[in-house]
Amino acid sequence: MAATNDSRDVLKDLYAEWDSLMAENPTMSMRMLRSLFDEWHQSTTEPENVTYKEDTVGGVKGIWCLPADADQSRVLLYTHGGGFAVGSASSHRKLAGHVAKALGVTSFVLDYRRAPEHPHPAQVEDGVAAFEGLVAAHIKPENISTIGDSAGGNLAISIPLALKEKGAQLPGNVIAFSPWLDMENLGETLSTNNDTDALITPELLEGMIAGVLGESTDPKTPLANPLYADLTGFPRIYITAGSIESLVDNATRFADRAEQAGVDVTVSIAENQQHVYPIAAGRNDVADEEIARISTWYASA
Amino acid sequence: MAATNDSRDVLKDLYAEWDSLMAENPTMSMRMLRSLFDEWHQSTTEPENVTYKEDTVGGVKGIWCLPADADQSRVLLYTHGGGFAVGSASSHRKLAGHVAKALGVTSFVLDYRRAPEHPHPAQVEDGVAAFEGLVAAHIKPENISTIGDSAGGNLAISIPLALKEKGAQLPGNVIAFSPWLDMENLGETLSTNNDTDALITPELLEGMIAGVLGESTDPKTPLANPLYADLTGFPRIYITAGSIESLVDNATRFADRAEQAGVDVTVSIAENQQHVYPIAAGRNDVADEEIARISTWYASA
Repeated sequence: MAATNDSRDVLKDLYAEWDSLMAENPTMSMRMLRSLFDEWHQSTTEPENVTYKEDTVGGVKGIWCLPADADQSRVLLYTHGGGFAVGSASSHRKLAGHVAKALGVTSFVLDYRRAPEHPHPAQVEDGVAAFEGLVAAHIKPENISTIGDSAGGNLAISIPLALKEKGAQLPGNVIAFSPWLDMENLGETLSTNNDTDALITPELLEGMIAGVLGESTDPKTPLANPLYADLTGFPRIYITAGSIESLVDNATRFADRAEQAGVDVTVSIAENQQHVYPIAAGRNDVADEEIARISTWYASA
Repeated sequence: MAATNDSRDVLKDLYAEWDSLMAENPTMSMRMLRSLFDEWHQSTTEPENVTYKEDTVGGVKGIWCLPADADQSRVLLYTHGGGFAVGSASSHRKLAGHVAKALGVTSFVLDYRRAPEHPHPAQVEDGVAAFEGLVAAHIKPENISTIGDSAGGNLAISIPLALKEKGAQLPGNVIAFSPWLDMENLGETLSTNNDTDALITPELLEGMIAGVLGESTDPKTPLANPLYADLTGFPRIYITAGSIESLVDNATRFADRAEQAGVDVTVSIAENQQHVYPIAAGRNDVADEEIARISTWYASA
């Protein structure tokens, strides 16, 4: 496993570099962390035959990924990762482009408001507003999929939960790459995979949790921590994570709860892969193969 | 002037932010400077109807910008700015995409080897290798234009100079945005525009010069400092810079020397604009208007 197109794990190398830069400068400002994490895009190739367009949907800025010959009536509403605080539409444009292309649809990658300037639930609100903006633009709810990675995987799940609370129609599909859900920071794999995960540490997560929840939000709030949500009636969902990452049990614990609630769940744990490994699309065969499986799953609805 | 689509000078704001971050951390590592300067792309909108493709041309990696309906037989060989040390094909992809689209041609944005790991003339060699790679791929030399900004504007000029030394065929056009040429750091506008230039300082340039020239290259070397080059037989050239930037007299001094050598030179100095102002394409009307003028100039050959 971990076969990469050029025999290196480019994502692991990038994470290891970030980790040593953060270790060298433990007081690195949020401003510089944002600069650093925007390099996430370097792990992804430019997907061919995809064009882009900046836009505002439901009042939220973002980037459309428009593969040639995509079905324009179907949209992946993509929420990027980065602990709710870093990352951007630009850092995840290429990943969203690869997935949209594989699925034959379009994607709108949100620049949602980030923590700590904008604590929870600003991110969920922006996702819901964008979803409603797509519906207002005559995209059928069932033709929208929420999709995201890490903290954005949390949002891909919490956006439908917030829509359900409102009694609104839900997206047809949910796709989550290494979702980060556990705001109590309790997962077993945080310690058991601490040595193999090249990026995530419990301390890094603590800082991100403090930023997004602030003083006033309980870490068991279902819209912040979907491990506590009532999942009855939740859309079909595809979840993937790497076997050696610290957050893998966020994916498996959520999948177990969803199955118990009768949700149509597909879980794929990729051996020997890092956090958000699909972002190495075009550079890592494992990422490309997973995206191809998601395409098959998507078409099977 | 300085009218921007949203009434702000987004580029000036970004430069001011970088300057304060560098001032707060005067020992910022080259690694973090590279992270920071890759944000250059934020000042540019995603150009619509352009696709991208990673490739290697003449052994040099880069990104193709492929506007819909572009003339595939014509190529802008784009060399990015960043003091020969920072910046990348990714930071300038959108700018190259805007220019390629306006001119109705393709662009290949080089990830040339950067200083200080690779001092002069590594950058020029990579540019020449890519030019020769395009010719080997049956692009006619006269249908290639070298184009770049800042240090990449220097390369857009030094690549044809190196080809001339070899007795090879030259590109049909040269386009330079705020070229940085003076490796002696002597320009008058370095001091007279020091207060209005939001990015460049003599000290910043000193560091970049030391990095690219190292111990062994004379700052009067014509391929490093084209102000000392013999410009006889040089291709037609379009040069633009901002009136309030520290490097504006690099553009005007080169233009004067080129005119004296009988070169077909067009110079456009944009009032109240910052270094490499065309990189705000899509966000600054002045940038878009200049690119439109370059398109007219290009078509008039």
